Amino acid sequence: MLLEHINQPEDLKRLSLTELETLAGEIRQFLIEKLSVTGGHLAPNLGVVELTIALHTLFHSPYDKLIFDVGHQAYVHKILTGRKDKFDTLRKYKGLCGFVKRSESVHDVWEAGHSSTSLSAAMGMALARDLKGEHNKVIAIIGDGSITGGMALEAMNHIGHEKKNIMVILNDNEMSIAPNVGAIHNYLSKIRSDRHYLKAKEEVEHLLKKIPAIGGTLAKTAEKLKDSLKYFVLNGVWFEELGFTYMGPVDGHNLPVLMDTLKQAEKVNGPVLVHVVTTKGKGYTHAEKDSHTWHGLGPYKIESGQVLKSVGPPMYTEVFGNTLIELGAQDPRIIAVTPAMPGGSGLLKFAKQFPDRMIDVGIAEQHAATLCAGLASEGLKPVFAVYSTFLQRAYDQVVHDICRPKLNVTFAIDRAGFVGPDGETHQGVYDIAFLRSLPNMVLMMPKDERELRNMMQTAYEYNEGPIAYRYPRISGTGASTQETPVAIPIGTWETVREGDYAAVLAVGPMVQVAEEAAEQLAKEGVHVRVVNARFIKPLDEAYLLQLASEGLPIITMEEGCMMGGFGSAVLEFYAFKGIIGQTIKVLGVPDYFVEHGSVPQQREEVGLTSHHLVAEVKKLMPRKRQRA
Amino acid sequence: MLLEHINQPEDLKRLSLTELETLAGEIRQFLIEKLSVTGGHLAPNLGVVELTIALHTLFHSPYDKLIFDVGHQAYVHKILTGRKDKFDTLRKYKGLCGFVKRSESVHDVWEAGHSSTSLSAAMGMALARDLKGEHNKVIAIIGDGSITGGMALEAMNHIGHEKKNIMVILNDNEMSIAPNVGAIHNYLSKIRSDRHYLKAKEEVEHLLKKIPAIGGTLAKTAEKLKDSLKYFVLNGVWFEELGFTYMGPVDGHNLPVLMDTLKQAEKVNGPVLVHVVTTKGKGYTHAEKDSHTWHGLGPYKIESGQVLKSVGPPMYTEVFGNTLIELGAQDPRIIAVTPAMPGGSGLLKFAKQFPDRMIDVGIAEQHAATLCAGLASEGLKPVFAVYSTFLQRAYDQVVHDICRPKLNVTFAIDRAGFVGPDGETHQGVYDIAFLRSLPNMVLMMPKDERELRNMMQTAYEYNEGPIAYRYPRISGTGASTQETPVAIPIGTWETVREGDYAAVLAVGPMVQVAEEAAEQLAKEGVHVRVVNARFIKPLDEAYLLQLASEGLPIITMEEGCMMGGFGSAVLEFYAFKGIIGQTIKVLGVPDYFVEHGSVPQQREEVGLTSHHLVAEVKKLMPRKRQRA
Repeated sequence: MLLEHINQPEDLKRLSLTELETLAGEIRQFLIEKLSVTGGHLAPNLGVVELTIALHTLFHSPYDKLIFDVGHQAYVHKILTGRKDKFDTLRKYKGLCGFVKRSESVHDVWEAGHSSTSLSAAMGMALARDLKGEHNKVIAIIGDGSITGGMALEAMNHIGHEKKNIMVILNDNEMSIAPNVGAIHNYLSKIRSDRHYLKAKEEVEHLLKKIPAIGGTLAKTAEKLKDSLKYFVLNGVWFEELGFTYMGPVDGHNLPVLMDTLKQAEKVNGPVLVHVVTTKGKGYTHAEKDSHTWHGLGPYKIESGQVLKSVGPPMYTEVFGNTLIELGAQDPRIIAVTPAMPGGSGLLKFAKQFPDRMIDVGIAEQHAATLCAGLASEGLKPVFAVYSTFLQRAYDQVVHDICRPKLNVTFAIDRAGFVGPDGETHQGVYDIAFLRSLPNMVLMMPKDERELRNMMQTAYEYNEGPIAYRYPRISGTGASTQETPVAIPIGTWETVREGDYAAVLAVGPMVQVAEEAAEQLAKEGVHVRVVNARFIKPLDEAYLLQLASEGLPIITMEEGCMMGGFGSAVLEFYAFKGIIGQTIKVLGVPDYFVEHGSVPQQREEVGLTSHHLVAEVKKLMPRKRQRA
Repeated sequence: MLLEHINQPEDLKRLSLTELETLAGEIRQFLIEKLSVTGGHLAPNLGVVELTIALHTLFHSPYDKLIFDVGHQAYVHKILTGRKDKFDTLRKYKGLCGFVKRSESVHDVWEAGHSSTSLSAAMGMALARDLKGEHNKVIAIIGDGSITGGMALEAMNHIGHEKKNIMVILNDNEMSIAPNVGAIHNYLSKIRSDRHYLKAKEEVEHLLKKIPAIGGTLAKTAEKLKDSLKYFVLNGVWFEELGFTYMGPVDGHNLPVLMDTLKQAEKVNGPVLVHVVTTKGKGYTHAEKDSHTWHGLGPYKIESGQVLKSVGPPMYTEVFGNTLIELGAQDPRIIAVTPAMPGGSGLLKFAKQFPDRMIDVGIAEQHAATLCAGLASEGLKPVFAVYSTFLQRAYDQVVHDICRPKLNVTFAIDRAGFVGPDGETHQGVYDIAFLRSLPNMVLMMPKDERELRNMMQTAYEYNEGPIAYRYPRISGTGASTQETPVAIPIGTWETVREGDYAAVLAVGPMVQVAEEAAEQLAKEGVHVRVVNARFIKPLDEAYLLQLASEGLPIITMEEGCMMGGFGSAVLEFYAFKGIIGQTIKVLGVPDYFVEHGSVPQQREEVGLTSHHLVAEVKKLMPRKRQRA
């Protein structure tokens, strides 16, 4: 095994080309085996084995900066930079992170989990290099999906203008997480298909060399004509017009060709874009055949390619997808919008049934949100299906284009709360804070999948501005989803369990946690009221006033940041009303970024479990003293 | 006067071409006269007089949708749609809005204040049209600065792919608010300069028509060759590759040519981009010569072009700019980054002195923020100078690329709080709520310009992650700025005035307001303590504990949203510590969007004045009862 002896990038430089190719095979085997147990982003990493080997062989990390966009395709990079022994802990609590992480290795010079950040980072590092008078290479590796994100396009516009020495590796696997959409994607396809016309190109190139330089008044016209013929020769005129030298397309699994191209690219002055065509899942038939399923997944059986799934109630995502079909069948004004997550958001069936009414805009959250505003301004009922963490990308559009003009856009916020193994880059714990401070916004979270359906009906019937329901990345509670959904009156809570010792105002899945705690406390004779605080905004003011008049101590519980979250909303309510003396204990996510692990581990870490709640209730002063 | 008889777009359709040209002159005169009194966005509107006339003459608003990007160039549109009589109230309290506004007119089908939203809106409206089986035109008018904003590029990628009938008018004035940067700008310049080679083009075009269609295996090569020659003929290949039909460049002040081009564009199937070249400030020499100054301004003298300026202490922006030069002279690691606002952010002098260390990225807030992260990751000290309202565009980048990896990026947040006449699209009232909920963030606001300098020194010396200082769009208090700035210990407040009746925790300019109130109350024997709550995060915990032990009622006061703002942070602190019974009154911006007017009017509306504070203090229960 060659891989055994690779502990740092320097070790690669001693290997022959043949040995490097052998190593690629070994790494593929390693990934397929390790991930069959831990799960992880298999297909993207199988696609970049040769590319990562080539980069680490030719360049000098960390002096040269390798910037992996998104970072879920950096497993090979991790293997080659001394972390192969930690792969059994991949994405596990306190284990190896599934993304690039600066604290893990000096070779991780940039870290991300969201897409499209690498070009901006590269520009920053290149500017820093030049100001410091250094000479290191700056190399960004970005996918064909990520490069169409707005911030990546902003960065290209800037890089092309400033002419800094930056190498952009466009890892084109013809498909990012979902089948790619967009004009740039079409353009890349065109380039790829052009590969077959090499001979004719060679002839034109030959001809071009023979055209002499022309001076005088004709010079500009001649230059333009020459440019025009170059357009025939060079595929990447779109990139060239942006100020990049374009090279490619090159086969990303042909190591000698790849290394030759990178060597040439290294010599280019100014920004260069190397278009590398790779196959997602390369070398593992199951993953090659269905790179969608194999993009990121749990454990699987290597031989059969059987993906091991836990049994249990359906995920909230699935309930959302099914219910949206029911609503969509009733009303043709309902349009689903997704930023490149049709599968992840449970919209594939909806898309099949209503192809005209399912709009996948690619990785473009900002555009998606404002597109919804445009649809709503014309009387349609758009549903923006988006993960909590990715909605962050559209914050300004939510404020400026939707809440301000009070447009009827529904936000279906998936992955709200802890997300488990994706960890700190993907935690959906800020949306309560950033949405509830916006005027005109209604924000809900269901206690179970049945209530999610009711909230979807509520949002559908609501016509007074934006409305959002957030739901977690977990299975439902097993509640029935057979009933016809019924709208919930805006701003009303529900008493789930009676009690007179204290009231727990629980949000979403915390209702179940609170019920478990209440059950346990009841055995000790302590009766806690459990309230399903299903509206985060507006609050149930009548309920809160009632609690105040009862003098009941309150505990709020949410899977969201404590700074500015639901608990704060409750504190504000009483303060704004001038009601003082109420005991209010806020449980939520404290003020730091919670790392990867399982959702139960993450809840345990921050104290969002039934046993923590039991302890908190016991800490409360006896109710009688409280009342005084 | 023709203008007298124009009360709706239909009235234009009765005019001859010559009359329309005369009308253009009258509108220019109208704008120059009206704005000389009210102030406003003069130069951008003078640039689009013919364009707006042409659009309203040829199309049928509001059936056809005219979508003005940003909306500060829609004055001509307002004049032509029945609002000319309201121009004396432009940008004034309860008067005509300086931007497009749906509640003002049925012709305002979209509203904005931030740039780059029009293409997404257009796509939404086009999708809605097609789903509804309507046939109206959808026309977006967008500037060459706005089109390079990430969300506009995302939208182009989507529009070009979907092939919807959308007309994009690229209003290219070679300069948006600041001189334009970026590769796309270079590209547009190249197209413009190509206008002189028309004859050669015509010949090639003629030649192209003669090339017969070729079948068989050669077809694809021949097609590519034809495309290649088209590249010579058509200027807009970059746009063509994105799926747009490109037309232009056309002189935006030549009404007959402009109207002809628009008529042709109307016939195009699929998305079409009409490249219209205009001159900012057209027809008013002063504005043409210096479109930067005349972009948006206060009253001026028409003849001399003298801009009337109020005398008084310098604006905070100016103090920021000057102080950054002092810091920059001491440490070459300090880099200023601006998203197209070098003038507005007070950075022009810095740019002159340190041209390599002032980075204008164009309208690209997301890229700007992550570029700062890249610079910081390499040990530099970037200062991201950005308006509060535009920082909203970079929310995810602040969370994911800066706070999470705890990088040393300084945020200089200008226009924090009320912004006066720009109104609700530009109010800087959400940044406290959205920044303080993020882990690792330090957030400050100075009570005067001297303290701003001290905060800049504090940020400079701080090396433990992101740090922000926010300052308002007003003049300073007149405090001296001569002293060498001194760092303030993180998380410490300052007692500005002693008092034992209540404590006002005031943020930024509210300190002065509180002092005025305290002064007045003192005359009545009521002594209020005024605290400069200069750190919004972290809070001065020792100070808050001290206040609790004294049992003093607290009033918090901030020019920021009350939902999740500084007041909530104070409520949270006591709740998290389990301290109950404290009277805390929160003053801030209530939960709605505050419209345009002067800053004093806006403060008056929401109760952020000294007389409101006096009334609030008087409402407090006498201190003795409070203590019990």
